[in-house]
Amino acid sequence: MYRTHTCGELRIQNKSNKVILAGWIQRIRELGAVTFIDLRDRYGITQLVVDEKSTDEVKKITAELGREFVIQAEGEVKERTAKNSKINTGDIEIAVDKITVLNKSEIPPFTIEDNSDGGDDLRMKYRYLDLRRNPLKYALTLRHRMAQEVRKYLDSQNFLEIETPCLIKSTPEGARDFVVPSRVNAGEFYALPQSPQTFKQILMVAGYDRYFQIVRCFRDEDLRADRQPEFTQIDCEMSFVEQKDILSMFEGLAKHLFKNVLNVELDKVPQMPYADAMKYYGSDKPDIRFDMKINEITDLAKNNGFSIFDNSEYVGAICAKGCGAYTRKQTDELTDWVKRPQTGASGLIYIKLGEDGIKSSIDKFFTPEQLQKIADRTEAQHGDLILILCGTKKKTQGQLGTLRLEMGNRLGLRNENKFAPLWIVDFPLFEWDDETQRFYAMHHPFTSPKPEDVDKFYSSKNEDIANVNANAYDFVVNGVELGGGSIRIFDRKLQQRMFEILGFTSEAAESQFGFLLNAFKYGAPPHGGIAFGFDRFCAMFGGSDSIRDYIAFPKNNSGRDVMIDSPSPIDDSQLDELSIKIDIKKQS
Amino acid sequence: MYRTHTCGELRIQNKSNKVILAGWIQRIRELGAVTFIDLRDRYGITQLVVDEKSTDEVKKITAELGREFVIQAEGEVKERTAKNSKINTGDIEIAVDKITVLNKSEIPPFTIEDNSDGGDDLRMKYRYLDLRRNPLKYALTLRHRMAQEVRKYLDSQNFLEIETPCLIKSTPEGARDFVVPSRVNAGEFYALPQSPQTFKQILMVAGYDRYFQIVRCFRDEDLRADRQPEFTQIDCEMSFVEQKDILSMFEGLAKHLFKNVLNVELDKVPQMPYADAMKYYGSDKPDIRFDMKINEITDLAKNNGFSIFDNSEYVGAICAKGCGAYTRKQTDELTDWVKRPQTGASGLIYIKLGEDGIKSSIDKFFTPEQLQKIADRTEAQHGDLILILCGTKKKTQGQLGTLRLEMGNRLGLRNENKFAPLWIVDFPLFEWDDETQRFYAMHHPFTSPKPEDVDKFYSSKNEDIANVNANAYDFVVNGVELGGGSIRIFDRKLQQRMFEILGFTSEAAESQFGFLLNAFKYGAPPHGGIAFGFDRFCAMFGGSDSIRDYIAFPKNNSGRDVMIDSPSPIDDSQLDELSIKIDIKKQS
Repeated sequence: MYRTHTCGELRIQNKSNKVILAGWIQRIRELGAVTFIDLRDRYGITQLVVDEKSTDEVKKITAELGREFVIQAEGEVKERTAKNSKINTGDIEIAVDKITVLNKSEIPPFTIEDNSDGGDDLRMKYRYLDLRRNPLKYALTLRHRMAQEVRKYLDSQNFLEIETPCLIKSTPEGARDFVVPSRVNAGEFYALPQSPQTFKQILMVAGYDRYFQIVRCFRDEDLRADRQPEFTQIDCEMSFVEQKDILSMFEGLAKHLFKNVLNVELDKVPQMPYADAMKYYGSDKPDIRFDMKINEITDLAKNNGFSIFDNSEYVGAICAKGCGAYTRKQTDELTDWVKRPQTGASGLIYIKLGEDGIKSSIDKFFTPEQLQKIADRTEAQHGDLILILCGTKKKTQGQLGTLRLEMGNRLGLRNENKFAPLWIVDFPLFEWDDETQRFYAMHHPFTSPKPEDVDKFYSSKNEDIANVNANAYDFVVNGVELGGGSIRIFDRKLQQRMFEILGFTSEAAESQFGFLLNAFKYGAPPHGGIAFGFDRFCAMFGGSDSIRDYIAFPKNNSGRDVMIDSPSPIDDSQLDELSIKIDIKKQS
Repeated sequence: MYRTHTCGELRIQNKSNKVILAGWIQRIRELGAVTFIDLRDRYGITQLVVDEKSTDEVKKITAELGREFVIQAEGEVKERTAKNSKINTGDIEIAVDKITVLNKSEIPPFTIEDNSDGGDDLRMKYRYLDLRRNPLKYALTLRHRMAQEVRKYLDSQNFLEIETPCLIKSTPEGARDFVVPSRVNAGEFYALPQSPQTFKQILMVAGYDRYFQIVRCFRDEDLRADRQPEFTQIDCEMSFVEQKDILSMFEGLAKHLFKNVLNVELDKVPQMPYADAMKYYGSDKPDIRFDMKINEITDLAKNNGFSIFDNSEYVGAICAKGCGAYTRKQTDELTDWVKRPQTGASGLIYIKLGEDGIKSSIDKFFTPEQLQKIADRTEAQHGDLILILCGTKKKTQGQLGTLRLEMGNRLGLRNENKFAPLWIVDFPLFEWDDETQRFYAMHHPFTSPKPEDVDKFYSSKNEDIANVNANAYDFVVNGVELGGGSIRIFDRKLQQRMFEILGFTSEAAESQFGFLLNAFKYGAPPHGGIAFGFDRFCAMFGGSDSIRDYIAFPKNNSGRDVMIDSPSPIDDSQLDELSIKIDIKKQS
């Protein structure tokens, strides 16, 4: 037997027990003739003591121990004279009778502490050491808990967890697929799923009614910070439901998770139309932990001789409460901030409601009365600062949204222990892309138009199609989109029209999605669903912006696993068997 | 609202309730002016009635309904005059007030009945229809239940479910990998995992102590019946454990599953050394639901002038109880059976203990006393039949094992409602392959030798190495291997020696498993684990030999998903981006 207890388990009640512990050496302190060893495992830290009463054998072995050695220690539980209230085992220590080195350790390349001195690259290469650190242990344990609670809730609601295949078929629509050459079917390829979308719809056609899966998905995209080529979704689908049924079911899931994982009671989750989100928050994933809504002031701003406003399609303002005393230096710095390429505004106008009355950078063009009207519109009061951007409508709303979040950060309004979830609803079905001169599905090609918009859906006019709204919804918490879904098309004709709008020839639609169109011939029920980004859901619960610490073995920004050094070349014989050949084109 | 109840829910207590149901039409029967419709969903079947009291609208729609139409029906729950005790809702029916066709259906290519008239190919192409059948619904529901119970048990035992990556690194050892070309790292490939073996060991080095995952694995093998290119494992690993700890923990899992899924109480699971399994059952996965052990009779058989025995290394016998009256025709047929290439014996000798005394096909060479000695060895009694095979030892034991199973089938000794699990232990660490003249790891290269065999493990003599036993174990139920595992090597030097025996150069070991060897430098704890074949575990629980019905979307024997028609060619632009080219060699 390697151990009788874990390192997080012993209490004062265990006093005088003979115990065996096993774990890693976190720290060794020598105080004269006494050596204290902090022994660590997944469950905690227990202090071992070797002193003048210890045997020579124990003293000899102890003298040769080092950080991260794996040892087994036998001894008696004693009450500590100096208790440590910071750890659960702080009342006791083990007087060691016997010590065995199970494995030695070289000196780790970084310290195994909450705040490691290892850089990102080093931490990823030695992930097994990084994972020993408390923040990562907390993250993975939280993730485990989340997964169990997701299943507990959905199982209680009669959902069936059904596994869908990983080796599926490549479809050019959407993001880029990872593909897998088939050896048996030379020249052909499987693709790894970007989501089990079509399979879960097939399960609905098959009558499975309530499906879920916590499932790996794959996207061969150019990686931005915090995107992973493989990621995990909570994927769900239901039949014989309308949008409100789905929102209510998954509001239930969210409440269950907040309650059972974080012990947070969630109120009723509000719903906000997409149009309002864009109008008031400049974003389809507004952070509503704080107010500071965007106000359109185009009508008040234009025709006052200020050409920058006059030449703008849209002028909008936010009110930063209590910032009326901002100095010139501070507003200049904010101006520089909005001009960064990430925000992309061409300039910033401000109105201060400070000590010396209403002041602004456009005093030349606006009377105090006119400025006051703007202040009234934004509900600004004495002591506040109004920030104004202008330009084309959509772009400026987005910039105001970004500025709003920044001001929220600066004013400490984005408390990571506060959770403000909401549903965004009534999305447009399509986005028009100027570059390729075609419509793209805002969610995906299986999302149904609102019943009242079906006529427009069949219209030959682009402006009609652009105005079709979707039975689609996103779940947003604290400005982060955690999930999204839709009521699906379940009518073959409607689905064919969808493919047509998206520019599929009927041959292409047939070859890629023929099985689904075919399935729709045999009694497809009305259905809809949702998928949550599980990595991000976990990171949100852990209070982190980054998903990387919530994935046991993440890849770096070049899609490499630096620990195992993958991807890597493979043998020519493997290539031969797969009937492929490397063919690296020179960069032009 | 699409429905107030499911089709499996209404009882006599709901009499007079106004309800709305939705589902598929299983069957329509017209009896004069009355039409009965069996409406089906995942939960059951409810009978709808349309008769002379129904509205014209309802009658009109009813007249146009067909099998597998999806409808919504509103009406009142009535007590049936002729009750149907075969279904849960058999006491009631719905007098339909309103009927809505939600979706039509073409006539399905096969019937949606328990015993479908569709062949395998048709059923796989129309998997969404096949999945509507009760046996598949039962299989997938059982699988869901199993998955939940596996997690419930392991979570209760402090295991953490941790996801390991799907895009890993190709290693030539073992079965063939599926590979994934990397676009960003041109000319390089990821591999899909055959198992998360090295990652779970890394998690142990990271201190995670008790890990599990229900995880997809991939093997690009030539498919035999009932092998799938992607399959699911219950994958587990523990630290600070010995073999007995693991056997006891997972015996606990087995008991939990049998109890909570099948309501079967399992006794203590017996352990059998590999050598005994081969000796008495001719198999490393014996079916111990019945006895009929193999008896070696080489000593009794040889040197009696029967050259076939005399020229054999080994002679073995089984006793088929109660078959002493087998006719010549029957023993001839059995002889043909053992000569089939699948069994591969060159002939069959029998001894009958029948009406007219002891009789055998070798009466010419053996006295009745000598035959009786063989009968005594096999514990045969009056009325029994002894079946004898001879040849080289290992091969003959295998053939006797196959014959034993066949006789078990013929005698009805393999009751699918009886479960006889056991652990096979003390496996050899290596298998010698004559063809390639090298050792292969019987389990895998991470399995540790028994501590007492470590000297032999370092020996330069092949016969020593061949005799090293492993800390490995298999979990077998009813002759099917459901799982296997081992105590792992956690010492760098031992691991390097293992790679050396398996013929790795140190460069190859370093490039493929360097990360693991490296991890072993930083305090690797003693650890071990197990993996269960989840598909097969489910099929076993469902009483089926075939895993295919327990997988929602299986592939056929050529690795094709015939429903979605995958694998399939991809665009040249995709190949270009991936820096690969199709290169099909002509078959020589």
